[in-house]
Amino acid sequence: MPVSRIIGIGRHHGAIHNRRRRPPIMSEPAFIAVDWGTTSFRLWLMSRSGAVLAERRSTEGMTTAMRTGFADVLQSHLDAIGAPEGLPVLVCGMAGARQGWVEAGYIDVPASLSAVLDGAVRVPGQARDVRILPGLAQRDQNAPDVMRGEETQLLGALASSDAGEKLVCMPGTHSKWVTVKDGGVTGFATFMTGELFEVVSKQTILSHAVAEAEAFTGEHAAFTAAVRDIYANPQLATNRFFTLRSGQLLHGLTATDAKAKLSGIMIGLEIAGAHSTARRETPVVLIGSGALGALYEGAFTALDIHYTVIDADEAVRRGLLAAANAIWP
Amino acid sequence: MPVSRIIGIGRHHGAIHNRRRRPPIMSEPAFIAVDWGTTSFRLWLMSRSGAVLAERRSTEGMTTAMRTGFADVLQSHLDAIGAPEGLPVLVCGMAGARQGWVEAGYIDVPASLSAVLDGAVRVPGQARDVRILPGLAQRDQNAPDVMRGEETQLLGALASSDAGEKLVCMPGTHSKWVTVKDGGVTGFATFMTGELFEVVSKQTILSHAVAEAEAFTGEHAAFTAAVRDIYANPQLATNRFFTLRSGQLLHGLTATDAKAKLSGIMIGLEIAGAHSTARRETPVVLIGSGALGALYEGAFTALDIHYTVIDADEAVRRGLLAAANAIWP
Repeated sequence: MPVSRIIGIGRHHGAIHNRRRRPPIMSEPAFIAVDWGTTSFRLWLMSRSGAVLAERRSTEGMTTAMRTGFADVLQSHLDAIGAPEGLPVLVCGMAGARQGWVEAGYIDVPASLSAVLDGAVRVPGQARDVRILPGLAQRDQNAPDVMRGEETQLLGALASSDAGEKLVCMPGTHSKWVTVKDGGVTGFATFMTGELFEVVSKQTILSHAVAEAEAFTGEHAAFTAAVRDIYANPQLATNRFFTLRSGQLLHGLTATDAKAKLSGIMIGLEIAGAHSTARRETPVVLIGSGALGALYEGAFTALDIHYTVIDADEAVRRGLLAAANAIWP
Repeated sequence: MPVSRIIGIGRHHGAIHNRRRRPPIMSEPAFIAVDWGTTSFRLWLMSRSGAVLAERRSTEGMTTAMRTGFADVLQSHLDAIGAPEGLPVLVCGMAGARQGWVEAGYIDVPASLSAVLDGAVRVPGQARDVRILPGLAQRDQNAPDVMRGEETQLLGALASSDAGEKLVCMPGTHSKWVTVKDGGVTGFATFMTGELFEVVSKQTILSHAVAEAEAFTGEHAAFTAAVRDIYANPQLATNRFFTLRSGQLLHGLTATDAKAKLSGIMIGLEIAGAHSTARRETPVVLIGSGALGALYEGAFTALDIHYTVIDADEAVRRGLLAAANAIWP
């Protein structure tokens, strides 16, 4: 994907960082792509070929926009990049939830990825053509599940012509594991890994054991040992949590090792769960980036799981591009 | 155990409820028993035969006493019941932790229960003879573990002459499962079930799904189904957490069913873990009481696990009695 030169960095209320880029020759703005999550807002001005011409990032996710108004949040970012009038906007993520801007519903799995393209809902009363992509729902009585936003990453990460079965891992607050077969989603499962790591490390007795931890990588011995231990013994997860405290009392376990171990328990448990819903030999595609993506890479390596990596940001932009080119041909 | 008539209910700072009982004929006060936990303080004036002559309960656990002084907290309760001068005091629980009153150390397992009696530490500088019982430690590198207070419940629940193997379950904030063989502790495991239930139900996205829940029992269908599901599939625990949210979105799961399901996931996971450290056919002794004890009884029934029940309060008093009679014969 071509990345043009950064020509300025602006500040905006609630914005984390914003970049404007000079369009490369022949790259005309074609549409605006928005990934609107629960706590984050990301917007890209894009050409038809996928060049990023301008970018905005802010913390004005659904939680904020529910109070301040979705239309106003979007308009402020469009103004900030001087978005050409009449350019259409394609949105994925929680803006399409029932409590979001306009409900975009769910496509039920099993479903082809192209069904997501067909389910876009137009936001009424807007001067521009603004559409929101639907989520995916699995209406299984024993394992009901939903996603919003990740279906667009999938769309960007996988060509619909891809043959064979893949297990796609999207780590995060609520990690998603999706089984994709011949370009269609056959099922998926959400794991509350990131959110649980947060509350366990900050709101329980273990907060003392991990408080002074330094950074660690996916190759850290305490991390990989915990991944292997819990993958083999998932039923001991809440017992292994307590060993952070008892290990500190009895064996002088350091804060960094304790935090690495907690992370390994959470991620190892997730991988064991995901593998129980799919064949172990299914190739894994990791849609991740940054430090969290690197931890999952370390965990896969520790478990001898073969995987390939796709950058998460790039996946969601590619997905929005594919959808936009289908909706506005 | 004889229970004498309640002759008054008093109030005391930090006290939950306090009872004074008229001593039955022939029941002379022999010693004072104290169960001093992290957040609770319970004191009983007892006869040599085990009659409870007076009782105090308060929230002045270790956390409070670390600030206000252990000696002062104890003295205020001794004054409130008019404890005869010179009567000795036997304490179990967190008062013996490193950050407690006087460190009482740990007895390493495997250990006979009588080793706990021998490890009592005398508090220096007190007019009375005040002793604190030690905890138990398991110094296994892979499964380090500690307990303080539960060893005294064990002492009260099991006769040291008991032959054969038992798996003792003590539910709570940090549930303990202890393997006891021929009157000795061979190993144990702590599960952070209660504390995790609290943070998951109050501090995560699931708080909305369970907020309006009504009371439920151990026979509640959503509870028993979750216990069986997670016992068979412990690796899916953090996925099943998320189904409280998706079940509410897709299938109208009620708050009561959601909370019962969360409870079943937590308890079922604990039982699966405990069973993986012991033989499944080992008889289970549940030291529990109240609503939580009843939930564990429901879970054992759902899993066809044979169990017997001993009241938790009675177990700790009996344990302190056995220890006091050994220390002050």
